[in-house]
Amino acid sequence: MSRALHDAASGTLFGVALNYQGLLNQRLAEFEQPPYQKPPVKPVLFIKTPNTRNGHGQPVVYPQGIEQLQPGPALGVVIGKRATRVSVDNALAHVAGYTIVNEFSLPEDSYYRPAVKAKCRDGFCALGPELVPAAQVADPQQLSIKLFINGQLRQQNSTANMVRSVAQLIAEISEFMTLHEGDVLITGTPEGRVDVLPGDQVEVEISGLGRLTNSIVAAQEKR
Amino acid sequence: MSRALHDAASGTLFGVALNYQGLLNQRLAEFEQPPYQKPPVKPVLFIKTPNTRNGHGQPVVYPQGIEQLQPGPALGVVIGKRATRVSVDNALAHVAGYTIVNEFSLPEDSYYRPAVKAKCRDGFCALGPELVPAAQVADPQQLSIKLFINGQLRQQNSTANMVRSVAQLIAEISEFMTLHEGDVLITGTPEGRVDVLPGDQVEVEISGLGRLTNSIVAAQEKR
Repeated sequence: MSRALHDAASGTLFGVALNYQGLLNQRLAEFEQPPYQKPPVKPVLFIKTPNTRNGHGQPVVYPQGIEQLQPGPALGVVIGKRATRVSVDNALAHVAGYTIVNEFSLPEDSYYRPAVKAKCRDGFCALGPELVPAAQVADPQQLSIKLFINGQLRQQNSTANMVRSVAQLIAEISEFMTLHEGDVLITGTPEGRVDVLPGDQVEVEISGLGRLTNSIVAAQEKR
Repeated sequence: MSRALHDAASGTLFGVALNYQGLLNQRLAEFEQPPYQKPPVKPVLFIKTPNTRNGHGQPVVYPQGIEQLQPGPALGVVIGKRATRVSVDNALAHVAGYTIVNEFSLPEDSYYRPAVKAKCRDGFCALGPELVPAAQVADPQQLSIKLFINGQLRQQNSTANMVRSVAQLIAEISEFMTLHEGDVLITGTPEGRVDVLPGDQVEVEISGLGRLTNSIVAAQEKR
């Protein structure tokens, strides 16, 4: 990824699950069952560990012995200023800028288990191509997000459909933990995830943020 | 924490849930129910984010609006050498040393949800007092682990009762993700967790590793 982005986004990568209305709606029936009995009332967070960091134009290794690999197009929010218990109104003042995230994952049929094994494989979190300063993004809730595989449009949505806005996420998360300069909020992947295979070229495009490109490669027998 | 420990353990903090036989046995009935239907077959991991890092002798803030706070005494394993798909036999060669971890958490009645909100409050992961080189620890599976609250012994167990040994954990985790120099494996908290309150002094002692001390303090209205 670009030097500026690398330097600005060197902190913790926080993923937010179920943050698109269409995806949440698909899951509502499931949440009526045990153990939840009701839909989540707070953001469901997960972590992309540092070994998952990957960049624009870099390969993503298709792990051995898996059945499916899915890209996760998402708006990335780079924190620019320490945030502890900030209000929704004041939240965006803590944003340095925005970038594209492709948060790869093995499909999970539930949200029950810590997702480390499905989400934290080496290279499973691509960021880039650039950090776009917050001042250049008029409204982070009005961005189109598109996923292309081998040039074909496969997933399309808008940040207008987020369950929680960027400002709401920063406020709700900073209520219980401090967000630091360099941390990145991965604000969720829309419904309709697709599978990719070795040889595929995967691109995520967000209006005003450019296009993040990665190629899927087969794992080497020896690493 | 000590300079040497701070420098050596600057990576990702990986928690392992349910890694004491007594605790797993207590949960077995629950795992027969939906959604699992069976006990976990692989290590259940969680992450302690960087904002949770805390040191020996440092205060741990009791968050506002919670009902219970529980210390989590654990053996910390500091990785000294990059580990990718290492064998059980070769695993301990990747360990730089050992330290004590007190992995604080809000109690959770299930393992269903990503535990970020319960486990990743600021200062919720104390490490220390020192890094003890691996060569000085004859057998990491023969260490007594004790929790003292205000000088009273409240929890006691042995690393001999781990479900997965340190070597097994390194082998199973490095099978799907690379462990890097400086990463720390928090190898699990025994059954019988207790509650602490502001004003309490909490100490974790592990044979050969010393004693990690923290005091619980009330949250300030303003931070």
